[in-house]
Amino acid sequence: MKAYQELTKEELLTLKAELNAAYEDAKGKGLKLDMSRGKPAVNQLDMAMDFLDAVNSQSAMKAEDGMDVRNYGGLDGIPEAKKLMADILEVKPENVIVCGNASLTIMYDTVSRAMTHGILGNTPWCKLDHVKFLCPVPGYDRHFGITEHFGIEMINVPMTPEGPDMDLVEKLVSEDPAIKGIWCVPKYSNPQGYSYSDETVRRFAALTPAAPDFRIFWDNAYAIHHLYDDRQDQLLEILSECEKAGHPDMVFEFCSTSKVSFAGSGIAAIASSKANLDDMKKSMTIQTIGYDKINQLRHVRYFKDINGIREHMKKHAAIMRPKFEAVLKVLDEELGGLGIGSWTKPNGGYFISFDAMDGCAKAIVAKCKEAGVTLTGAGATFPYKKDPKDSNIRIAPSFPTPEEMAMATDLFVLCVKMVSVDKLLENK
Amino acid sequence: MKAYQELTKEELLTLKAELNAAYEDAKGKGLKLDMSRGKPAVNQLDMAMDFLDAVNSQSAMKAEDGMDVRNYGGLDGIPEAKKLMADILEVKPENVIVCGNASLTIMYDTVSRAMTHGILGNTPWCKLDHVKFLCPVPGYDRHFGITEHFGIEMINVPMTPEGPDMDLVEKLVSEDPAIKGIWCVPKYSNPQGYSYSDETVRRFAALTPAAPDFRIFWDNAYAIHHLYDDRQDQLLEILSECEKAGHPDMVFEFCSTSKVSFAGSGIAAIASSKANLDDMKKSMTIQTIGYDKINQLRHVRYFKDINGIREHMKKHAAIMRPKFEAVLKVLDEELGGLGIGSWTKPNGGYFISFDAMDGCAKAIVAKCKEAGVTLTGAGATFPYKKDPKDSNIRIAPSFPTPEEMAMATDLFVLCVKMVSVDKLLENK
Repeated sequence: MKAYQELTKEELLTLKAELNAAYEDAKGKGLKLDMSRGKPAVNQLDMAMDFLDAVNSQSAMKAEDGMDVRNYGGLDGIPEAKKLMADILEVKPENVIVCGNASLTIMYDTVSRAMTHGILGNTPWCKLDHVKFLCPVPGYDRHFGITEHFGIEMINVPMTPEGPDMDLVEKLVSEDPAIKGIWCVPKYSNPQGYSYSDETVRRFAALTPAAPDFRIFWDNAYAIHHLYDDRQDQLLEILSECEKAGHPDMVFEFCSTSKVSFAGSGIAAIASSKANLDDMKKSMTIQTIGYDKINQLRHVRYFKDINGIREHMKKHAAIMRPKFEAVLKVLDEELGGLGIGSWTKPNGGYFISFDAMDGCAKAIVAKCKEAGVTLTGAGATFPYKKDPKDSNIRIAPSFPTPEEMAMATDLFVLCVKMVSVDKLLENK
Repeated sequence: MKAYQELTKEELLTLKAELNAAYEDAKGKGLKLDMSRGKPAVNQLDMAMDFLDAVNSQSAMKAEDGMDVRNYGGLDGIPEAKKLMADILEVKPENVIVCGNASLTIMYDTVSRAMTHGILGNTPWCKLDHVKFLCPVPGYDRHFGITEHFGIEMINVPMTPEGPDMDLVEKLVSEDPAIKGIWCVPKYSNPQGYSYSDETVRRFAALTPAAPDFRIFWDNAYAIHHLYDDRQDQLLEILSECEKAGHPDMVFEFCSTSKVSFAGSGIAAIASSKANLDDMKKSMTIQTIGYDKINQLRHVRYFKDINGIREHMKKHAAIMRPKFEAVLKVLDEELGGLGIGSWTKPNGGYFISFDAMDGCAKAIVAKCKEAGVTLTGAGATFPYKKDPKDSNIRIAPSFPTPEEMAMATDLFVLCVKMVSVDKLLENK
C-alpha cells in the first residue's frame, strides 16, 4: 500500500469518494459499540461469581490477628489483606494500608489532604499561590481530573516507550519548588501500555526535588494485568529504589482489585514509607473508623494469595487478548504503511493508544460517533482535555466482544482514512 | 438514702473507708470490661450472618434500572438502595446519594470539600480567616474530631432534653457569618439519648444564618435504633421542614447501616436538596467512579424494605434493652437520692449520659480504669476534649453482656461515690 502522503490530489479525491460510500454503508448498519472506557466485560465478571460465596453465613469471621471483621476498627486493613496487596505491589505489608473500593478515591483523598493539611509538616497546598503537577502525556484522564479539580497547574511531559522524558522531569522537578507531584502509570501505562524501564525507575528514585513535599503518584493500576504468559513487562519496585537512593518518602503508590474481582466492589491500597503512612493516618483516623473488612476478607478467602490472583488474571488475559488482537489485526491490515497513524502494541493493561496525523483526532472520534462507535473523547488523554496536536486517541478494547471490536475497528480505520484524506487535501 | 451533701465530715470519712475497702475488693476481681465505644455486641453480629448469603454466586446482578452492579458506574447508588436509605430518613430517593461504608467519611468529605471548594459557589472555607461550628454539648467526639482536624473553631451550645439551646443557636447563627455549621445528632443523641422536639426542628428550619453557606450537619445515626416497641421517639423530618420554611439547602443529613447490618461493612447515605447534591457530585465524580454497588444490593436483597429493617432492629433492641436496663437499675439503686450524679434514660440509641458532681468525671474514669473498667475518656463528649465542668461521662452499654454491664456499673457507682466523697471532703 502506498502512503497517503504520496498520493496525488486526484488519487485522494477518488479515494475520498470510495471512503464516503463505505462510510454511508457503515452508518446504515446501525452499530452501537462502546470502546470508550476500560470497563471489564460481562464474561470477565461472570467468571468471578463464586467470589461472592467466599464469605458466607457459615464463614469464620475473625482476621488473622483475631479481630472480628464484622465490627468497627482496623484502620490499616486486616493483616492478610495487607499481605495480599503488598504482594501485588512487591512491597512489605507494613508499607501498605488497605482502604475502600477505589484507588481513585485514595488518590483524590491524598491530594485533598495535601491541600488542607500538607504533607509531613509542609505548608498545606491550599495556602500556596502556585501548586503544579507534572503530567506525562498521553495519560489517564481521571488523574488529570483530580489535579484540575483542585486548581493545580498541570505541565505536560512527553511519554516515551521507556516512560516519561526523564531529562525534562529531572530539570523541572529540581528547579521549581511549586512542582509538588507527578502522575505516573508505570506499568502498561494508560493509554499507551508502556512500562517504565529500570533506568527510568532509578532516575525517578534519584530525583532531587526543589519541593520537600514533592511526591511521585505511582498508580500501579495494571501491576498484574498481563495479556500474555510469555511476554510480560517487569517493573522495578519503586519504594525500595527510593529507599536505596535516600528518598524513602518520595512515593505514594496505589493499586486496586477493581479489574481483578469486581469493578466498584474491589479493595484498594496505598503503599508508602512509614513516615508517609503515619502522616496520612492522622487524617484517616478522623475520616473513618475503618474500611470494609468483610470485603477484604472476601478477597483473601477467594484468591488465597498472590498465586491465586495470578491464576485468576490468566483467565482475564484469555478474555482480553483476542480483543486486543482483533483491534491490532485490523489496524495492521488496514492502516499499515499508509503513514496516517501509529499505534501501540501493549503486553498488558486495558488500552491501545493511537496517534493520528496532527489535527485529526477530534474529527475521527466525531465521525466514529456519528456511525455508532463511541471512543474516549479526543483530548481526554491530556490535561485540560487539550491535546496540543489533536492526534491521540485512546482505544479501550475490554468491554465489547472480539467480533464487536473487529467491527468497531473496521469503522475506526475507515474514519481515520476519511479524516486523513481530508487533511491531506487541505494542502493540495 | 441521705444525700452526700448532708453528711458530716465524720460520716464522710467513715464512708470513705468503707468505699476504699470495697474498691480494693473490686480490684482483686481482675475485671476487664469495656464500655467505652458504641460497638455492636457479638450476638448482634451473629444474628445478621445470613446477610452474607443475600448476594451469592447464583444471584441476579442487575439493579432495578438494569445496571450491572458488578461493573463501574452509578455514582448515586442503585435505585433500590436509594429508596431504602430514603425510607430510613423519611425523605425522597431523589434527595439521597448512597455512598461507601461509613457516614463519618461522608461527613469528613463534606467538610473537606467545603474547605477546598466551598458550598454552592461560596468562598472555600480554607480561604477564610475564621470558620466556626456550633457544637451542642455533650456531643459526639468524632464530629468534634472532624472540625478540630480542619482548624474550625468550635463553640459549645448546651443541650437540653428538647435539643440544643435554640435561643443561643438562633442568636449566634444570625449574628456571626463565620459560623458555617452545627453538628446535630437529632434522634437518641450521642451521648444523652435525647430527641429534638418538633419545636426545635422547626426552629432549626427557620434559622436565618448570617452565612449563606451555613449548613446543619444532621447526623441521623439512630433514626431506627429504638430500644422499646412502645416507647419510641419521633423526629420531625428536617428536609421538608427546611423546604417549607424557604431554606431548602440548609441541611446535610447523614445515616448508615453500620449498626443495622455490620459495622464497617454497611452502607452510608447523605440526604439533601437537589442543589446541594448536584454541587457535591461535581467533586464526587472526580473522587470516585462509584461506591460498592454489590454491597448496596446485598442490603436490599437482605432487608427487602424499610419494614424488613424495622423487624431486624427489633432483634437488636431485644439484645440492647437488657444492657441499658442493667445499667439503669444499678444507677437507680446505688446512686438514687445521693445527690452526686444524674443520668439519662433513653428510649433508643447507643448511650447513657452520666453527669457527676463538677470536677469529678476525670477522677471517676481513672478509678474505673485502674480497676479494669474502660469508659469513654472524660471530656471526650466536648470539643477539644475539654469538659468545662469535668462532669460528663458517656456510658456505652452495647458491647458487654448484661451481666458484665451490671458488674461494670457496680464498679462505676463505687468509683462515683469515692470520688464524690473526696470532693465533698475538700470543703469540709
